Amino acid sequence: MFDFDAFLRSSLAEDIGRGDITSQLTVGDRQYAEGVFRAKSPLVLAGADIPHRVFALLDPHAQVEMQAADGTALESGTVFGTVRGKARALLAGERLALNLLQHLSGIATATRAYAEACRGTGARILDTRKTLPGLRLLEKQAVVAGGGVNHRFGLDDGILIKDNHIAIAGGLEQAIEAARRNRPLHLRVEVEVTSADEAVRAVEAGADMLLLDNMSNAELAEAVRRVEGRVPTEASGGVDLDTVAGIAATGVDFISVGRITHSAPAADINLKFRPLAFRSET
Amino acid sequence: MFDFDAFLRSSLAEDIGRGDITSQLTVGDRQYAEGVFRAKSPLVLAGADIPHRVFALLDPHAQVEMQAADGTALESGTVFGTVRGKARALLAGERLALNLLQHLSGIATATRAYAEACRGTGARILDTRKTLPGLRLLEKQAVVAGGGVNHRFGLDDGILIKDNHIAIAGGLEQAIEAARRNRPLHLRVEVEVTSADEAVRAVEAGADMLLLDNMSNAELAEAVRRVEGRVPTEASGGVDLDTVAGIAATGVDFISVGRITHSAPAADINLKFRPLAFRSET
Amino acid sequence: MFDFDAFLRSSLAEDIGRGDITSQLTVGDRQYAEGVFRAKSPLVLAGADIPHRVFALLDPHAQVEMQAADGTALESGTVFGTVRGKARALLAGERLALNLLQHLSGIATATRAYAEACRGTGARILDTRKTLPGLRLLEKQAVVAGGGVNHRFGLDDGILIKDNHIAIAGGLEQAIEAARRNRPLHLRVEVEVTSADEAVRAVEAGADMLLLDNMSNAELAEAVRRVEGRVPTEASGGVDLDTVAGIAATGVDFISVGRITHSAPAADINLKFRPLAFRSET
Amino acid sequence: MFDFDAFLRSSLAEDIGRGDITSQLTVGDRQYAEGVFRAKSPLVLAGADIPHRVFALLDPHAQVEMQAADGTALESGTVFGTVRGKARALLAGERLALNLLQHLSGIATATRAYAEACRGTGARILDTRKTLPGLRLLEKQAVVAGGGVNHRFGLDDGILIKDNHIAIAGGLEQAIEAARRNRPLHLRVEVEVTSADEAVRAVEAGADMLLLDNMSNAELAEAVRRVEGRVPTEASGGVDLDTVAGIAATGVDFISVGRITHSAPAADINLKFRPLAFRSET
Amino acid sequence: MFDFDAFLRSSLAEDIGRGDITSQLTVGDRQYAEGVFRAKSPLVLAGADIPHRVFALLDPHAQVEMQAADGTALESGTVFGTVRGKARALLAGERLALNLLQHLSGIATATRAYAEACRGTGARILDTRKTLPGLRLLEKQAVVAGGGVNHRFGLDDGILIKDNHIAIAGGLEQAIEAARRNRPLHLRVEVEVTSADEAVRAVEAGADMLLLDNMSNAELAEAVRRVEGRVPTEASGGVDLDTVAGIAATGVDFISVGRITHSAPAADINLKFRPLAFRSET
Amino acid sequence: MFDFDAFLRSSLAEDIGRGDITSQLTVGDRQYAEGVFRAKSPLVLAGADIPHRVFALLDPHAQVEMQAADGTALESGTVFGTVRGKARALLAGERLALNLLQHLSGIATATRAYAEACRGTGARILDTRKTLPGLRLLEKQAVVAGGGVNHRFGLDDGILIKDNHIAIAGGLEQAIEAARRNRPLHLRVEVEVTSADEAVRAVEAGADMLLLDNMSNAELAEAVRRVEGRVPTEASGGVDLDTVAGIAATGVDFISVGRITHSAPAADINLKFRPLAFRSET
Repeated sequence: MFDFDAFLRSSLAEDIGRGDITSQLTVGDRQYAEGVFRAKSPLVLAGADIPHRVFALLDPHAQVEMQAADGTALESGTVFGTVRGKARALLAGERLALNLLQHLSGIATATRAYAEACRGTGARILDTRKTLPGLRLLEKQAVVAGGGVNHRFGLDDGILIKDNHIAIAGGLEQAIEAARRNRPLHLRVEVEVTSADEAVRAVEAGADMLLLDNMSNAELAEAVRRVEGRVPTEASGGVDLDTVAGIAATGVDFISVGRITHSAPAADINLKFRPLAFRSET
Repeated sequence: MFDFDAFLRSSLAEDIGRGDITSQLTVGDRQYAEGVFRAKSPLVLAGADIPHRVFALLDPHAQVEMQAADGTALESGTVFGTVRGKARALLAGERLALNLLQHLSGIATATRAYAEACRGTGARILDTRKTLPGLRLLEKQAVVAGGGVNHRFGLDDGILIKDNHIAIAGGLEQAIEAARRNRPLHLRVEVEVTSADEAVRAVEAGADMLLLDNMSNAELAEAVRRVEGRVPTEASGGVDLDTVAGIAATGVDFISVGRITHSAPAADINLKFRPLAFRSET
Repeated sequence: MFDFDAFLRSSLAEDIGRGDITSQLTVGDRQYAEGVFRAKSPLVLAGADIPHRVFALLDPHAQVEMQAADGTALESGTVFGTVRGKARALLAGERLALNLLQHLSGIATATRAYAEACRGTGARILDTRKTLPGLRLLEKQAVVAGGGVNHRFGLDDGILIKDNHIAIAGGLEQAIEAARRNRPLHLRVEVEVTSADEAVRAVEAGADMLLLDNMSNAELAEAVRRVEGRVPTEASGGVDLDTVAGIAATGVDFISVGRITHSAPAADINLKFRPLAFRSET
Repeated sequence: MFDFDAFLRSSLAEDIGRGDITSQLTVGDRQYAEGVFRAKSPLVLAGADIPHRVFALLDPHAQVEMQAADGTALESGTVFGTVRGKARALLAGERLALNLLQHLSGIATATRAYAEACRGTGARILDTRKTLPGLRLLEKQAVVAGGGVNHRFGLDDGILIKDNHIAIAGGLEQAIEAARRNRPLHLRVEVEVTSADEAVRAVEAGADMLLLDNMSNAELAEAVRRVEGRVPTEASGGVDLDTVAGIAATGVDFISVGRITHSAPAADINLKFRPLAFRSET
Repeated sequence: MFDFDAFLRSSLAEDIGRGDITSQLTVGDRQYAEGVFRAKSPLVLAGADIPHRVFALLDPHAQVEMQAADGTALESGTVFGTVRGKARALLAGERLALNLLQHLSGIATATRAYAEACRGTGARILDTRKTLPGLRLLEKQAVVAGGGVNHRFGLDDGILIKDNHIAIAGGLEQAIEAARRNRPLHLRVEVEVTSADEAVRAVEAGADMLLLDNMSNAELAEAVRRVEGRVPTEASGGVDLDTVAGIAATGVDFISVGRITHSAPAADINLKFRPLAFRSET
Repeated sequence: MFDFDAFLRSSLAEDIGRGDITSQLTVGDRQYAEGVFRAKSPLVLAGADIPHRVFALLDPHAQVEMQAADGTALESGTVFGTVRGKARALLAGERLALNLLQHLSGIATATRAYAEACRGTGARILDTRKTLPGLRLLEKQAVVAGGGVNHRFGLDDGILIKDNHIAIAGGLEQAIEAARRNRPLHLRVEVEVTSADEAVRAVEAGADMLLLDNMSNAELAEAVRRVEGRVPTEASGGVDLDTVAGIAATGVDFISVGRITHSAPAADINLKFRPLAFRSET
């Protein structure tokens, strides 16, 4: 997200609209405050640079200090950051900063749980394109903070041949051939298959990677065995925390999980303010 | 969201980037397909107009028919919509349409669950400003689809005096007085209180509504009793599906729940395509 | 106006276009100048922070000092601000700074005149949505500088039921009932009426405020009397400086005046430059 | 204004914000209405295409018919246009359409008054850059509708050497020489002078036009005489309806008047709606 | 370029500015014309859909018919397209349509020349990131029209380890190892090398592709020989039409050429209009 | 280009996309580097302020020093600038800075060559509107750096009556008369003619300038002779370096050359980086 400030500015505009009326009516322009970020339940932090970016847009002199970086596991009750600045700026930015921190830390926390469940196998957790509009890059960074690996960021930086492409192209081999012939120079060709037989056919037709879709653990294990490590394998489909360890044990290289982005509950973080006695002259 | 198409266009740009390479390599420009939307688990639908808007941007001749409107409860397995159009357009818009439908229907489904839990009391479920950047209006429409009521949409269309405002303004009565004196003409003044005593003081100082924050059910009931219906009351703080019925029984008018937006899991919906035999000449 | 600089940048782009050719041809890049703002007729100042914001965009090192704040009444001839900076920047920003200052001060000056005419009554001057595209927030701030009160800022932060809504909804009581049932939580319901009878009916149906539209002073007085202070009243329709005092004397709480925004003549302000001898090295 | 719809869209967004709540609560989506535009005082119309453009953005099937074109003088009471469409669209666009029509017709009406005052002389009325941010092109089209002539549209499409340029360039002749030497190919060089002597000097130094600034009528007449028609002349400075005829009689070719844009009161136009019985299926 | 119309609209705004004055003064709004596109020298066409897109923005009823598609080689004198529509729209869009067509066809023509020079070898022509700001996607489509292959579209859809990355990472093997360990799932790792020895080292360290930079033909041939087809090879550096055949003969798979984008002269195309007798009523 | 940074930001976004993956994988955030700009062939520099502007957007602490200004002729091998800053910022901005510098210096170099070819005559080189979308202002500044003169910047800052305008207006005199009658105050009327007879007719009808289109040198000389210096003359049409001197010798004032913008090859400039040993703490 090259122009991150533009994203935050439009997010602030969504929340502030024509102005924070309550603060305009009850808080003076020269009033200062301090806020403290605290984890209210165990979580993995993501978005640690967001408070700094948000408050700087509202008060260029605001001071933000974070005591934890992305990927840090925090105990419940841990204070991990403070902010000082104009009270109006803090009150106006509070909601955006928290909404993002909680959402992204929720994703990192969920990712970490899946990654832990695979510990001891070679399988790594992959994200998907099941992200929310406007938030994809942030959500994918949160996945990395949680220990996951990023799958493609959009339809343009990876080739993934699915059942519909195969049906329209006239067959698995035809689709792979068409993709390989004119593929952009740096992109690998991944192919979705639903059986060990198809997996082998795809490898022999030139696939660089396999997406093993909605297969049983037995089928996954067979596919992995017959592929013989010639290309990396990815399992997908209805993975949850109860099933992920079993899938990992089949020997697949990657397991993609939509739930870590589209269904991760927000991490519980609060931000408590207290007024500061002094008034600074900027 | 006055310019909804602009939102969808930037969302498509995020996903499509420099082009859907896979489809460009394997699907012809004159190939057509049909897709079917199906609920994979019980859910309350929200965002029913999104498929039409998304696919129209990619193929102006795409035909979308939805058999269910926002707020409809769908059984698992129900087919509720179809789309026909250029295969490339359908494949390029699929992810955005589904990501939004699943997210918004997840919110409507969660809201409905909370609303059902209050059935038989006078309490209604309120949303909060705990929404994701760029998605607030859509998420609030989903809350309405689920049977909830919208709280303020931003910092500009409601006055809500919280503890920090009170601390800085020098006291509860002072903050209410300051807000009432210069309030924009159409806005009511809501005040956050943490005890029945404060609730009464706020009403007597001129509050138009009360936010009863993090109070026990006993305290809530007492506050409701002593306010005597002079102003509406709203309970908030750590509400979940286990506790909401008990809170509703205290007699509060509204219960605000952050979880219905920030932690609702995505509803399970899929969109299956099949190629169409004909090729239309537009 | 959260992103005020963006507004000023597009305004400068409108005026400067592809460049200030005259200054490029006749003024060196290292030439400096000083400008003085002077009231050429009595006026109430509004927009006092505009020169600082405009010139900072053109020369980050420009120094602007204003000796008067918004709402100050200035005698003709008063010098109220100075600016020093690059001559090219001053010449390029002069027109925008003056156009805004003159327009906004014109509004503040007109508002003050109406407010003065009501002195001794309880009536306060309200603005309307009769503002110019892109300038609403600035114009409404100018109304406040002149001593007026802001009515709603848009169609979204206030409920105002007019004759057309009543006709379509099927009657006064029906429209009020419809609005009250699903109103957003913080918004009051104002109803337009044209007689004392309707005023009473509206109050009894639950209106929170009344807009008394195009009524004679006798009718206004009767409506005020029969409403008995149960809700605030607003008079509107064809108000001018000759009639406003009479209307105020009827006992209404507010008088809304379109003329203070849509027909206020520009305040007469000039900005005279003189070249500075020194050349600074930044 | 090449992308006029973008201007109208952002203007609608300013007014509508998160939605027209009142209409959403009281008017059905299938309700239709008709509106009639009427002049409430004598005026010269400008902006006649605005209703069509505004309502088309809100209801693509809205039908707008205007019976008068820009520049037409309308008697008080004249109906000059009608609109039919969805009631919600008409109510949402009403204010913007009227605000623009009234403002622009106010400018055309003022311009016409000045032009009439010069009738019988050769002098024509010129506008200035004293326009409101974002509205310059529309305001300048309104000046043409009123019978005026457009001066430059920005700092880039005309060379106008003023006192500051002369002071910095080191003298009148030096400034003209500098401008002529490198001027963009199609632009004429106008020079501001304050006496007949300077006027002659400017002409002899190569000025293509003269701006006679703040000169008495006697001085203007002398300058005109001594310039002998070699270049066009423009009088400026404090022109009002009482003085313009006298200035025109001095023989100047153009008189520039800031008041026609920055201080023209809004023309009095209203738009009355009535609900339509039928409900159309689009 | 998902939102191509937005690109064209801003390009038109750059050229048209505040309006096409000449046409406004000399051409009626109801005047129609026809234009004919003709190649004035032999060329390979690219951008064939541009006239349709440009003129549709200026006159929605304009009719454009192109008789040749991208990639077609045209003889000098060939008429390859016509446009009919409002004369003002045609005159306003002429320059943009031609500027783009000539530039893109120039690139396609240059690319074709290089591709022809390699005929009989297995080498294919690659483009680079040496494109003009804002035009990269169009220019890369023109390269494909000319018979070339697209290298990466930006810094995000390919990994290319150059000398600086190697120096900072502490060595060739270290850089490759760092990139392989955390590479995004679909991207291949290309490594820049300057000798056959380095080429072999890079392959053994895990490079998926090689960029052979500024090597003599003898060195290229040796590198190709020692790589033994294990990964594709790309030659780059100072390639021109005189040298490309010799390079192709070394056995490299790809030759990247900056000149086909940054230095291709515009193709000579003109667009001649003639007024049409009829006047259509839309 | 009033908002140059916005142009550069969108240009960087085009190249960087979702991030510079290679540098993220191989270069640390605290690594610093130095780069040196060098001319690889003789050239005239244009765009000298671009490196500073580009790198400041990526690393606000980057230090750029240029040893040559726009318009300077550089020998092959000359080092003319250095940049120091974060290695990631330098690698991310390298391509944009070079692409612009090479393109603009290519234009300046070509312009200088044409200007030199006219040395000794009074003819000056003019640019045209044959520029690339989004780059017109930069390209026209490069023409000035090369010693050329700018023709109009768009359709709005100059009147140029061409054959189509004449055909539609009903004749040469009619078109000139129409343009003169309502021309914007500061614009001169240039008329395209194709013979000495037409040239004389145009001057007598009031043209302020002549565009002598596609005439032989003999015809040009005759036209110049018969115009007798009453208005400036511009020759255009198929000018190249072989023919320009002969055209200049005919006595025309200006020669417009499309090739200096649309077909100038990029100047050969490189930027070589070396890692810096130190690591700065910002």
